Amino acid sequence: MPVNLEPLKSEQLAPVKGVSLGVAEASIKKPNRKDLLLITVSDQAKIAGVFTQNRFCAAPVLVSREHLHSKLPVKALVVNTGNANAGTGEEGLARTKRTCDEVAKLLGCESTQVLPFSTGVIMEPLPIEKIVAGLPASVADLREDNWFNAAQAIMTTDILPKAISKQIQLNGVAITITGIAKGSGMIHPNMATMLGYIATDAVVSKAMLETMLHHAVKRSFNRITVDGDTSTNDSLILIASGAAEMPEITDPGSHEFIALQAAVTDVATFLAQAIVRDGEGATKFMTINIESGHNEAECTKVAYAIAHSPLVKTAFFASDPNLGRILAAIGYAGIADLDVNRISLYLGDVLVVENGGRALSYQEADGQRIMKQDEITIRVVLNRGSAETTVWTCDFSYDYVKINAEYRS
Amino acid sequence: MPVNLEPLKSEQLAPVKGVSLGVAEASIKKPNRKDLLLITVSDQAKIAGVFTQNRFCAAPVLVSREHLHSKLPVKALVVNTGNANAGTGEEGLARTKRTCDEVAKLLGCESTQVLPFSTGVIMEPLPIEKIVAGLPASVADLREDNWFNAAQAIMTTDILPKAISKQIQLNGVAITITGIAKGSGMIHPNMATMLGYIATDAVVSKAMLETMLHHAVKRSFNRITVDGDTSTNDSLILIASGAAEMPEITDPGSHEFIALQAAVTDVATFLAQAIVRDGEGATKFMTINIESGHNEAECTKVAYAIAHSPLVKTAFFASDPNLGRILAAIGYAGIADLDVNRISLYLGDVLVVENGGRALSYQEADGQRIMKQDEITIRVVLNRGSAETTVWTCDFSYDYVKINAEYRS
Repeated sequence: MPVNLEPLKSEQLAPVKGVSLGVAEASIKKPNRKDLLLITVSDQAKIAGVFTQNRFCAAPVLVSREHLHSKLPVKALVVNTGNANAGTGEEGLARTKRTCDEVAKLLGCESTQVLPFSTGVIMEPLPIEKIVAGLPASVADLREDNWFNAAQAIMTTDILPKAISKQIQLNGVAITITGIAKGSGMIHPNMATMLGYIATDAVVSKAMLETMLHHAVKRSFNRITVDGDTSTNDSLILIASGAAEMPEITDPGSHEFIALQAAVTDVATFLAQAIVRDGEGATKFMTINIESGHNEAECTKVAYAIAHSPLVKTAFFASDPNLGRILAAIGYAGIADLDVNRISLYLGDVLVVENGGRALSYQEADGQRIMKQDEITIRVVLNRGSAETTVWTCDFSYDYVKINAEYRS
Repeated sequence: MPVNLEPLKSEQLAPVKGVSLGVAEASIKKPNRKDLLLITVSDQAKIAGVFTQNRFCAAPVLVSREHLHSKLPVKALVVNTGNANAGTGEEGLARTKRTCDEVAKLLGCESTQVLPFSTGVIMEPLPIEKIVAGLPASVADLREDNWFNAAQAIMTTDILPKAISKQIQLNGVAITITGIAKGSGMIHPNMATMLGYIATDAVVSKAMLETMLHHAVKRSFNRITVDGDTSTNDSLILIASGAAEMPEITDPGSHEFIALQAAVTDVATFLAQAIVRDGEGATKFMTINIESGHNEAECTKVAYAIAHSPLVKTAFFASDPNLGRILAAIGYAGIADLDVNRISLYLGDVLVVENGGRALSYQEADGQRIMKQDEITIRVVLNRGSAETTVWTCDFSYDYVKINAEYRS
């Protein structure tokens, strides 16, 4: 079961004025489950997006990128689970465009005003007729208080839906930020195998919205890993519907910009951590802090070397303080001039390594005490500068193998 | 059980004149198992070595590197299993030096003429008194026909010992090459978590021996991965005892050099592949060929992206032709200008992907047929140049998690 991730309740999610959601059961991979989501936005809405850096990106990623930069404003987003439409060549591209055409027909807009998203099995043909058949039901279901169903409709191997709402005051105006995300395996930054949709009713210029999104992604979805596999379909969309009564945010130095950016980052961080908490087979949630590095890039290298190590992850699964495996990962992280004799390692509040060797004060029982917890912080002090970073990950269990060995069955 | 790796028989291993081996049970981690190996070499022997590139390298790696470059010729190698003596700071270094001192005393040579090696758990103090107590028995056991016991004495999580002998004729003189290696988990090039010792009775200059060793390592131990974790203790040693009746090999263009280098590479390749076949929890042996790349470096990136992907490895464990996961790995391998529309993918003899999409001729049943085999070749044609590379790996099973979760218990 997910690590300290509470089951979601519908009433925890606040609608965002100007953003409607409709879901349908289209039997894309299996019958009797919500697998199709349509999101429509108000005419004045602004949209920003970031997408996977995988070169084998899926057809919907190519089309969404293109449509996001076309002249007409985005009117709708359409998401299917059960099939990633990746590794499907020209035919996959044609089917994604057909999805946009059909949505456009139903909503009375242009095909380029529709952003498509897919998640699921790679390299299988998108069952386009099932999607087309399901779309009218998703249109009929469109409403603003439908985020709970939307969070469910984008799940694949996720055990729990992931969503959160936050409200802030901007000069006395109540502003809502609500976000949903999916992802559990094939999770690695740039970005994780995830889809995320965050919406606010605030009025924000497109340029400011893009700045906010990149700020938030860098601190959230690009700081997590489950298994080091970067997906073909990752997409994160930030929508500002512009429905609130307030002047447009255009100044990155303004109080309003800073407050909204912080709230969006909070929502993104919650969702990103929720993906790790619900990581495939996860039994522990690990925070990896790398401190006093020469620069952030080397801190990130060390953090991911630890976070990706199957040996570290299986030791955490076993609650075994076999902490030499962390040292090995630090050693092969790729910092050529690393002086290991300066390194300290803490597990929770326990000093484990000092000056590159086992600390004299370290007792295995202390390590054991921390390893038994389900939220564990690993802190590495490189003692060579003032940069730092944080990465979140989970352990590696039998169930990860089971889930991924049986994924398509 | 290891994938197509036959249990070793003592009579398959030929002694190498001028190289003696002695083993002992020193109860380093557990009682009643061979865990200490001493190798002595003739006075005229030449030795070459390559070591882990992990910055957190073990104390014995530091000392072996130093002793290998000291003025006096190497007389002996001493290997313990059960403890890696890594992450052990100054005290670890002192204990390694003490091991060399004791060997030197017993053999009547200088401490700098002894190369020490350790493998086992990281960050635990080396039980030096147990090693010292065990050394006389290993001296008493020294003999040339002792490779079989030596192969057993260096095992950790290995299920089977790994060794091979090969004989070649150099101008009518029969030359023997015998090698042993250990390694099963924490296996990744630069180098793998492995120890390897290859010896020949040929007469070879030190410079030529080093050239041969680097040639062989590049094509064998640096082309394998089990879990992507680079160990703190990897070491591979090539010994030429010089006991054969032949002129010294000093010319890299000579027939003798080329023939011996090929034989040493064969032995190293067998041992490296044996490590993958006995990879922790392995049920399948996978050969990954990357072809027609722009250069070898990018071929290697793609090969290791596939070989390290937990999603690819679990799909192979399940015999599930979920081959889109291979495409995803190719896509995130880090080739910025990769045109995925030129890529072909073969599984065994089956064309799976053509022009970046699922091949029209591909049938899931054909993929399934190959996936059920225990030796599988994955062939990726990048269609952007003439470089190529090959990497060997294994799948990722429940037993990998089990072995590594329970390693210290």
